[in-house]
Amino acid sequence: MALQLAQRIDALKASDVREMLKITQRSEIISFAGGLPAPELLPIRELEEATHRVLQEEGAQALQYSTTEGYLPLREKLVARMAARGGVRTSVEEVLITTGAQQALDLTGKLFLDEGDTVICESPTYTGAISALKVFAPRWVEVPTDDEGMDLEALERRLQYCDRVKLIYVVPNFQNPTGTTWSLERRRRFAEIVTQHSVAVVEDDTYGELRFEGLPLPPIKSFDSKGHIVYIGTFSKVLSPGMRIGWLTASSPLYEKYVILKQGSDLHTSTLCQMQISAYLEMFDFDKSLSRMRAVYRERRDAMIRALEKEMPKGVRFSRPSGGLFLWVELPPHMDARELLRRSLELDVAFVPGGSFFPKGNKENTLRLSYSHMPVERIEEGVRRLSAAARGMMSAGTEDARLSGVESAY
Amino acid sequence: MALQLAQRIDALKASDVREMLKITQRSEIISFAGGLPAPELLPIRELEEATHRVLQEEGAQALQYSTTEGYLPLREKLVARMAARGGVRTSVEEVLITTGAQQALDLTGKLFLDEGDTVICESPTYTGAISALKVFAPRWVEVPTDDEGMDLEALERRLQYCDRVKLIYVVPNFQNPTGTTWSLERRRRFAEIVTQHSVAVVEDDTYGELRFEGLPLPPIKSFDSKGHIVYIGTFSKVLSPGMRIGWLTASSPLYEKYVILKQGSDLHTSTLCQMQISAYLEMFDFDKSLSRMRAVYRERRDAMIRALEKEMPKGVRFSRPSGGLFLWVELPPHMDARELLRRSLELDVAFVPGGSFFPKGNKENTLRLSYSHMPVERIEEGVRRLSAAARGMMSAGTEDARLSGVESAY
Repeated sequence: MALQLAQRIDALKASDVREMLKITQRSEIISFAGGLPAPELLPIRELEEATHRVLQEEGAQALQYSTTEGYLPLREKLVARMAARGGVRTSVEEVLITTGAQQALDLTGKLFLDEGDTVICESPTYTGAISALKVFAPRWVEVPTDDEGMDLEALERRLQYCDRVKLIYVVPNFQNPTGTTWSLERRRRFAEIVTQHSVAVVEDDTYGELRFEGLPLPPIKSFDSKGHIVYIGTFSKVLSPGMRIGWLTASSPLYEKYVILKQGSDLHTSTLCQMQISAYLEMFDFDKSLSRMRAVYRERRDAMIRALEKEMPKGVRFSRPSGGLFLWVELPPHMDARELLRRSLELDVAFVPGGSFFPKGNKENTLRLSYSHMPVERIEEGVRRLSAAARGMMSAGTEDARLSGVESAY
Repeated sequence: MALQLAQRIDALKASDVREMLKITQRSEIISFAGGLPAPELLPIRELEEATHRVLQEEGAQALQYSTTEGYLPLREKLVARMAARGGVRTSVEEVLITTGAQQALDLTGKLFLDEGDTVICESPTYTGAISALKVFAPRWVEVPTDDEGMDLEALERRLQYCDRVKLIYVVPNFQNPTGTTWSLERRRRFAEIVTQHSVAVVEDDTYGELRFEGLPLPPIKSFDSKGHIVYIGTFSKVLSPGMRIGWLTASSPLYEKYVILKQGSDLHTSTLCQMQISAYLEMFDFDKSLSRMRAVYRERRDAMIRALEKEMPKGVRFSRPSGGLFLWVELPPHMDARELLRRSLELDVAFVPGGSFFPKGNKENTLRLSYSHMPVERIEEGVRRLSAAARGMMSAGTEDARLSGVESAY
């Protein structure tokens, strides 16, 4: 007799993005798939020096159990950085170190969601948030977005008419997958609305440090008057994803509950990795490293946009993000990005089909391209091949797709 | 209006053990509380050399995202070690690296438990398993144990009469908190029973490598003919808890589900920490280090038992484990270990009251003592103070407690 599993397991499947990563480990692949930092930007030597100092000076502490809340000097630095960056006023008693931003999402699901509760999100949204929250069996309600962020009239209608809305998940800076950044006005008004409706918000600011142009906008958390907004950050995109160091900040009494849930989930995040990053921040100029990183990614974004403009057939639209790692492509409605992936993998080019960014799995004519991981020449070559694959599909399909021009409306 | 949380949150409270760790960070405290490895046994220099090699030779890989399943060379080494140690025949396709053994428990709850399902465990059981599984709102059914392990007749009665038994959690080697080790016959028979009843088992072997005397016994997993037993291991007690590297091994199709759940929970465990440990295992003699560790802990166990025999008042019973980190103390029935803790903390001695090791929180006259973290002289001094606190409580309480002799029946 087979073992009986929890009901939540029926709905689960492996993430396309993660499964894709396995393929993209082949070196000949031009990968626009995972949101991986450029390998040449990883601070290998600096982290080795930081490790040396940590193990020489505080080795026994670094290898030992530590408190669930996280390494205090690191939390102090995060409090200072969040305040400096955009007015998130918090304290170490409200900062919890997590095993990547992903764990902050898992803990959020545990904290808020009973089966059948409603989660509201941007459409599309981060596939990892979908997989983190899906195990708590929520009902998903998507809200359309435009180039200034979430459509707030649509949000208000949903808040009025949907039952049991427990949580809203948003990525206001350089959103994964679209690259969209919310305007200041949209942020402020959104904070007002969620405060009125007493609904919890998770603001995922994974990409906020990676702005290529324009002025930084304050996080939505900075407009949080009632302690309803949980702010998530991570070192994964700006220092090292492999170390799995993220954090959340939440007000009491949410914070204490998060800590208890974290305790049950993995006791605490790697002491060594926390201390390595804390030492790195003391020993090196992180902001200078961020500037370098932004310059590299800006150049790659530009290269990808130029190549898409030049190579992509008519009827293909794509976004022009002002930061982050991703841009979003819409194929003509009849085209299936999974079929495009099959064809482009034959040409050694990988990306993530857009379907997995919709909780209910529609809009199969979309895809996410990451420009962070490949040097400019490979981006150009990859877009050439991808475009050839798209043209091949189009000429095999209907003629309609050729009618509208190349657009990049959002 | 306050935010509405998930129903599961009502039942949660912070773990006594973890809260205790905060107190025990004061250096004057003689701590028998957390199951912390001795700081002087942590391989600081060796891990520094291992880190140097990893970052020099494979730095970009170490700091980058990696697959959810875990670092392949580490999984290969685990497969070999499990086979060598006691006949757990598995393969890399069945080994998942987790963020400590604790995360393996969290994932197990996610995989098996719907609200109201029954979890069977030893009585008492590991408090961290209780907190990991509690969020999935199971019903707990405890099975008494004797000095050979779980009472299997009692187990069979429960399997016959309890509804919705989904999971059995056991720690057959040097159990946390009692120190009990299951006999070979008990292991074999247990495997037969659970196979007949098609119930999933989690065998937590956190302490298996820390045997001080006698021959190692095969894990229950080695008798698993149907793939119903999930085996959990960790480097936390034998190398470094701060690095948070544990693992589980499960057969298909459970394995694939665990991987998906892990993906949603934290994507993967720190690549760097996995590679550091893998390099350590290649560069240094782990078995020799284990021998040293066993010798140190054996000496400390002996010191604690001698001191308890000498100092503890009549009516106090305690276990004599043949390995691991803990022994278990039963006070006379009327005595409350929380009151004893209050008194002993005044004398700068910490331990964990036993109540938190019972899912339903009874048996408040028990406590867990860890002998791993303190040198022999501090163990002797600590037991002297603890015994003085116990005598003080007894003379303040009823006279009955003095009637029975010092015992160590299990």
